[in-house]
Amino acid sequence: MQSPRRELPDIAAELLDRVRRRAPRVHCITNAVAQAFTANMLLAAGSIPSMTLAAGEVAAFAARADALLVNLGTFDPERRKASVLAIAAARKAGRPWVLDPVFVDRSPKRAQFARTLAARKPAALRLNAAEFQALSGMRESRRAVSDYARSTGATVGLTGQVDTISDGRRFAAVGNGDPLMARVTAMGCAGSALTAAFLAVEDDAFLATASALAVFGVAGELAARRARGPGSFAVEMLDAIHAVGPADVIRRAKVRT
Amino acid sequence: MQSPRRELPDIAAELLDRVRRRAPRVHCITNAVAQAFTANMLLAAGSIPSMTLAAGEVAAFAARADALLVNLGTFDPERRKASVLAIAAARKAGRPWVLDPVFVDRSPKRAQFARTLAARKPAALRLNAAEFQALSGMRESRRAVSDYARSTGATVGLTGQVDTISDGRRFAAVGNGDPLMARVTAMGCAGSALTAAFLAVEDDAFLATASALAVFGVAGELAARRARGPGSFAVEMLDAIHAVGPADVIRRAKVRT
Amino acid sequence: MQSPRRELPDIAAELLDRVRRRAPRVHCITNAVAQAFTANMLLAAGSIPSMTLAAGEVAAFAARADALLVNLGTFDPERRKASVLAIAAARKAGRPWVLDPVFVDRSPKRAQFARTLAARKPAALRLNAAEFQALSGMRESRRAVSDYARSTGATVGLTGQVDTISDGRRFAAVGNGDPLMARVTAMGCAGSALTAAFLAVEDDAFLATASALAVFGVAGELAARRARGPGSFAVEMLDAIHAVGPADVIRRAKVRT
Repeated sequence: MQSPRRELPDIAAELLDRVRRRAPRVHCITNAVAQAFTANMLLAAGSIPSMTLAAGEVAAFAARADALLVNLGTFDPERRKASVLAIAAARKAGRPWVLDPVFVDRSPKRAQFARTLAARKPAALRLNAAEFQALSGMRESRRAVSDYARSTGATVGLTGQVDTISDGRRFAAVGNGDPLMARVTAMGCAGSALTAAFLAVEDDAFLATASALAVFGVAGELAARRARGPGSFAVEMLDAIHAVGPADVIRRAKVRT
Repeated sequence: MQSPRRELPDIAAELLDRVRRRAPRVHCITNAVAQAFTANMLLAAGSIPSMTLAAGEVAAFAARADALLVNLGTFDPERRKASVLAIAAARKAGRPWVLDPVFVDRSPKRAQFARTLAARKPAALRLNAAEFQALSGMRESRRAVSDYARSTGATVGLTGQVDTISDGRRFAAVGNGDPLMARVTAMGCAGSALTAAFLAVEDDAFLATASALAVFGVAGELAARRARGPGSFAVEMLDAIHAVGPADVIRRAKVRT
Repeated sequence: MQSPRRELPDIAAELLDRVRRRAPRVHCITNAVAQAFTANMLLAAGSIPSMTLAAGEVAAFAARADALLVNLGTFDPERRKASVLAIAAARKAGRPWVLDPVFVDRSPKRAQFARTLAARKPAALRLNAAEFQALSGMRESRRAVSDYARSTGATVGLTGQVDTISDGRRFAAVGNGDPLMARVTAMGCAGSALTAAFLAVEDDAFLATASALAVFGVAGELAARRARGPGSFAVEMLDAIHAVGPADVIRRAKVRT
């Protein structure tokens, strides 16, 4: 008999290894603050990022990539247009895409745009509690996350002190991470990018999302042991994503299902 | 009898503590090079940054923030428009705002725009000697800084080897900092952002500006003791802003009034 | 009799010293992901970066700079326009400029634009093997690099495990560097920026380009000895560019001519 409690860390370790072996291309439409850290996170994980937003090119980049990230952190016309073009190209090419609806709780227009995109079949949605509430209209709960996953058809990864992941059928709670993760800009954005890399190598979006968030949280814990503050933590986080081994993931991932 | 020489470090220590307790929101319109480092500096200090520039959202973000930073380092149409909208929203909401007129000495158009903004009642102006001269038409001197502060109604923080701060009535010179601060891009921009965070928790713009620059300089000295070059200095600076204690500020701030 | 094998490291050491003494201004039109790291690399090397893209200012900045970098990593209308304006201003002022045709292998439109720019007399072209092939139509080889240099009139610096540099007449191979350099975003872009700084202090574009790439590679090796992964490597790289001495360059540069 298999215990689901033990299963996910093993899967996460395997998917991490798969990302490193296959070096998937992830195209990122992300906010200006997050671009460099996101690209460095993907490179550190063994993936190949591209970041162009130009209307004349973005569809070609998205179609050739193995996964797409759409992050709404800077909500300018160029990125809105790029998001629509890239999502259409990714869907046509059969590639998974991740939606990170940054700060939809702060701007009704952004929330409305995010809802339009959420209807275009993202494989995963990565957000925090305030963003979840703004988008779904529901308070954070296991039931709400599951319901929202079912209604969108996406795996929902709601991150916080404990990350809750559901595809409407299955559920996982990941208890890894460190408070310093909230003190570095674009850390959540980078977690969404890692989720895209895992989706590029695993068709089951629930397993890919839960695995990516578990690996991300384990790396955060390893990084925190070496960091002396948020500046060194950001640096150590990239080193940790590069160095974290399957054994670390299996030993340290705190997953409840 | 109170000695003003001893007062300001105590006030700086108190305001630092207040920023950490209140976690003020600072909305930043800043240049592309500075965005990530500025956001990380604010997070490290205990403040909550937001960085959107989009015309449809920026007024809402500025109105809900506790302070606003306008930095002219990338002088594109989107940021010019965002600056005007955000300043109007901040003023209407009664929020303080800081102007950082980057490189106005290099571009007459930028200087002209900066003068227009300076007439819109910034609480503080943070700039270097070349920018001060381009904007005020005066060479750096205690008198000139004081005169320019009086004419704009803003507290002027002219940073350099020694920072000089005046609101036209009071004067302070802060002698903290390290030469490595000039070898990291966006370090001045980050100092302006910290000033905005201090203005968010203290109505007296002179005390807020002098305190922010003193804390910033003390953190620079602490960071320099651990750094081996400009790369590690940038990292250590974020750690130092996160770690610097009230006692460090009181012991180390070199303030003349 | 002079040995060319010994000459270039000596020249590289001398040009590094010259950059530090003269502090040349380098104006950069570069992609959003690379802006901050590029500015920090130039500052660490002792050069003064500026990064504006605004159509109303970019010609003035380029004309007053000592060298110009044009990097196509984000191919948006604003940067295309800025590139054309800045190149015209630099040429009129007699300043050298460097073209870094990022990802031309991924986008035919970008390759076409890069070819238009390559006809405008860059002093140097810095690119990787895939970009070289997309632009020149030739596979990487000593002969191909030399032929392409002759046809463009530019010094070509094709970087990879070994960097090959030619102006169509002379040839150098630089064997320095570290695999971690490929795991940090914008590392190639930063190498192009350093090349621009060296061109600002040396009229012979072949010597300037080969020297810059040798110094960059030596710094990469020094950085790798201290780094524990790609995050700390990026930090150590800035420290190394700041700290590397003429003696390190002379002792460590692996140059074949």
